[in-house]
Amino acid sequence: MAADPRFFPQAGPQRLEDLLAALDEPCSASGAADLVLTGVAPLAEAERGQLSYCDGARNIAALRRTAAGAVFVQEAQRGAVPEGCLALVVRHPALAFSRAVALFHPPPRPQAGIHPTAVIGAGAEIGAGTHVGPYAVIGEGARLGPDCVIGPHAVVGEGVVLGEGCRLHAHSSISHAICGRGVVLHPGARVGQEGFGFVPTPEGRFVTMPQLGLVRLEDGVEIGANACVDRGSHADTVIGAGTRLDNLVQVGHNVRMGPGCVLVSQSGVSGSTTLGRYVTLAGQAGLTGHLTIGDGARIGAQAGVMRDVPAGADMLGSPAMPVKEAMRAMMMMKRLAAQQRAAARDGEKD
Amino acid sequence: MAADPRFFPQAGPQRLEDLLAALDEPCSASGAADLVLTGVAPLAEAERGQLSYCDGARNIAALRRTAAGAVFVQEAQRGAVPEGCLALVVRHPALAFSRAVALFHPPPRPQAGIHPTAVIGAGAEIGAGTHVGPYAVIGEGARLGPDCVIGPHAVVGEGVVLGEGCRLHAHSSISHAICGRGVVLHPGARVGQEGFGFVPTPEGRFVTMPQLGLVRLEDGVEIGANACVDRGSHADTVIGAGTRLDNLVQVGHNVRMGPGCVLVSQSGVSGSTTLGRYVTLAGQAGLTGHLTIGDGARIGAQAGVMRDVPAGADMLGSPAMPVKEAMRAMMMMKRLAAQQRAAARDGEKD
Amino acid sequence: MAADPRFFPQAGPQRLEDLLAALDEPCSASGAADLVLTGVAPLAEAERGQLSYCDGARNIAALRRTAAGAVFVQEAQRGAVPEGCLALVVRHPALAFSRAVALFHPPPRPQAGIHPTAVIGAGAEIGAGTHVGPYAVIGEGARLGPDCVIGPHAVVGEGVVLGEGCRLHAHSSISHAICGRGVVLHPGARVGQEGFGFVPTPEGRFVTMPQLGLVRLEDGVEIGANACVDRGSHADTVIGAGTRLDNLVQVGHNVRMGPGCVLVSQSGVSGSTTLGRYVTLAGQAGLTGHLTIGDGARIGAQAGVMRDVPAGADMLGSPAMPVKEAMRAMMMMKRLAAQQRAAARDGEKD
Repeated sequence: MAADPRFFPQAGPQRLEDLLAALDEPCSASGAADLVLTGVAPLAEAERGQLSYCDGARNIAALRRTAAGAVFVQEAQRGAVPEGCLALVVRHPALAFSRAVALFHPPPRPQAGIHPTAVIGAGAEIGAGTHVGPYAVIGEGARLGPDCVIGPHAVVGEGVVLGEGCRLHAHSSISHAICGRGVVLHPGARVGQEGFGFVPTPEGRFVTMPQLGLVRLEDGVEIGANACVDRGSHADTVIGAGTRLDNLVQVGHNVRMGPGCVLVSQSGVSGSTTLGRYVTLAGQAGLTGHLTIGDGARIGAQAGVMRDVPAGADMLGSPAMPVKEAMRAMMMMKRLAAQQRAAARDGEKD
Repeated sequence: MAADPRFFPQAGPQRLEDLLAALDEPCSASGAADLVLTGVAPLAEAERGQLSYCDGARNIAALRRTAAGAVFVQEAQRGAVPEGCLALVVRHPALAFSRAVALFHPPPRPQAGIHPTAVIGAGAEIGAGTHVGPYAVIGEGARLGPDCVIGPHAVVGEGVVLGEGCRLHAHSSISHAICGRGVVLHPGARVGQEGFGFVPTPEGRFVTMPQLGLVRLEDGVEIGANACVDRGSHADTVIGAGTRLDNLVQVGHNVRMGPGCVLVSQSGVSGSTTLGRYVTLAGQAGLTGHLTIGDGARIGAQAGVMRDVPAGADMLGSPAMPVKEAMRAMMMMKRLAAQQRAAARDGEKD
Repeated sequence: MAADPRFFPQAGPQRLEDLLAALDEPCSASGAADLVLTGVAPLAEAERGQLSYCDGARNIAALRRTAAGAVFVQEAQRGAVPEGCLALVVRHPALAFSRAVALFHPPPRPQAGIHPTAVIGAGAEIGAGTHVGPYAVIGEGARLGPDCVIGPHAVVGEGVVLGEGCRLHAHSSISHAICGRGVVLHPGARVGQEGFGFVPTPEGRFVTMPQLGLVRLEDGVEIGANACVDRGSHADTVIGAGTRLDNLVQVGHNVRMGPGCVLVSQSGVSGSTTLGRYVTLAGQAGLTGHLTIGDGARIGAQAGVMRDVPAGADMLGSPAMPVKEAMRAMMMMKRLAAQQRAAARDGEKD
């Protein structure tokens, strides 16, 4: 299946030479540089003239049967490329493919300029080449860098700073925040609202503790649809460069995370917890507050972390344990359940 | 309690004859067809002249005491209908009641036409009888069928297709999608945004893999408030006819689900997982990616499914086990905890 | 770190006398009433002339080292206040501090009046001093009390009632609801949409059961960003005075909760469950439907509650158990896992 041209207009056929020039690494295709490719598709669906890729050994069966005209592969899979298909040997086929796809289907870029229905606050600065869509609201004194895309209905609060090339999709909102370059908010993402901080009175009412920190999103951070990042209570909430949050993720006030973290859908980080570099949280995982999670730690799906986690650890379960320990505990549970079942059966026989 | 007329204006008293004519099945009420009913209410709150229903044996005590003028019941509960209340015997009392309620309180239908503040893209088609509310934004080339209701601030992306009678509530957004008839997006629902797909570079940055698939919502699909359905990465994300997603549900890219599935609030389905027909996910359940869940499988609340599930299975726990096994394991846990407690007490006595 | 003045403009230096007058309790600072303070900051970051607070014994080390000019402390920590720092002895230092912060940084109050782009339905009443922001949509017959702030793009449905001083942030929506004074909806909060109620037909389709109840938010209720509160199906969904919902929380139809409850991020309450007064749900906890949770019960993070909970109980685990029992069960799990590990090692040695 090729991409539906109604939604993903294709930037013409591409010469192999141009595709290879867009890669991060050299890739020779001797004698075929003037080949022209008509589009991209997965191995199983690619047709003659289309480009595909094989992401490691697990797809080797599909590779052997592909009808693609050319395919990015690692050296180890080169032998499985069928006759008539050009092998493009690279170290990172998926990465090479993603570069090539971006040439065939460049992300749409709305025309620069401010839609007549957008409301621009006094003193706001809009960078060159930036598009502000219908009904967007830009607060007083906000500073938007060049080449940003502000989607329909997006709301940018007073004083917010967006670096070059940020994209705010439909209905996203951001306030009390400083963003680097290339930050993306997907539809309905919420950034910078008041954190969940309050103090009980002796009479049992709650009084809000004013939340006086900001959110800092470093270069290339992406926040998923309907995900939430609260601003700090006194320190800032900080999300490191390139970190990606999936849909419906929650990040509480004063959280700090390093670059390259990945938070999968519906996971949550409670207030004042710190994540190192390249930490991953699988879906629906949760961290309680005031923890420190070391570099490269991996928190499994639905895990519930209530203590600090050392760098490189692999955690699972609720409460979370090292994954080996969690596996052993689960095995014991199953064994006990089986014993009980057997005992119950023996009882019935008697 | 009758419905608050400020919010739910009532379409006059209704003749029993008309109510019965609206059912899917025949229901005789000998000699009472000219009875007039003044409204609907639950058994315990219904007054003389109002219509109610008894949904099986569990409500039989309330049935015996009801003051309702007429009540939908199954044959088995007919004997418990009190004197002065007319028994309307049907196979599915709740279904019959829902039909009757819709006559008393027809869903409000805003006037057809396009609000002067709506922004309609070039080449967009708006079907006859369709209402487009204030500040809605309809993308270029979108095609909206007849009798749709587009709520305030809803955003429909370029090229999106909506069938007859779709309803998009306030602040919902949809892009890269093809919808059948009668599809409903509740407030803040997000459909068609980019899936969570990216490739790491050797330097540790993430490069987005362009997401070139669509979302297909078949007839009658409903997406809850602030729920998210990502578009496919190459294949489409497909949600089968009549499937209902509750609030804050997450559906990742390339997920396919059959008709009649029910996903309760805050549950999530990771990318490329396939659900058969009539699968149910209880609240906060989660499925990892690339799984196959068989027809009619039932996944319990907070269950975490990491393996394929056969048709008809009943799963519970994280990691999920067949419900009987999970129950046994929980029983063993409780027993062990009790033993430990007893041992600790004995220790204190010594 | 002081608050960033670009986002949190400061209302001048404050005289200690004025700060103390704003407290709920008397606090004498003999001879220092004419002291002037320049701002607020946490203990570790406060500079000379700034005000801080010490919230109990856990921060006593920071208290001993603080450079703050004055500090709210309890009597028990008075001795740890360093020389040159004025001790302001109160019973509730955090509460006193929150009052003081509100004087230094009063929440911004947009000018009263209706933005020219707002759409106001026929018969809607807007109270004196109320601000209606750009692109807000107010339904027919809605009644907004005095001194409310309606953020950009907020949508208020027909007939909705808001008491004095309510704040609806950007992109929030509310319909079918009656609100008391001081209710706050954070960005993207969804209140009053249709509950998740439907009836299967014999052919396997789902028919919506019309949802004819309202939402009632009592005085001071706050609903977090992208959180959802569905309206009742026949009775109302009721949230008691002062109750606070964090981001991404779900509350199903017909839920009733007492005053002073706290629902932390991503927790969920299924339909028709009743919470007493001062119930707390930690992050990602879930309650199934039709339960009764007693006053002051505390439900731990990720707990899954499937049965009624008595007043004052402390629950943990999924399925939830009293916290002591859950702890014992977890201890047994760890012990069993350790035994199995030891047995496996012995096996290797043999």
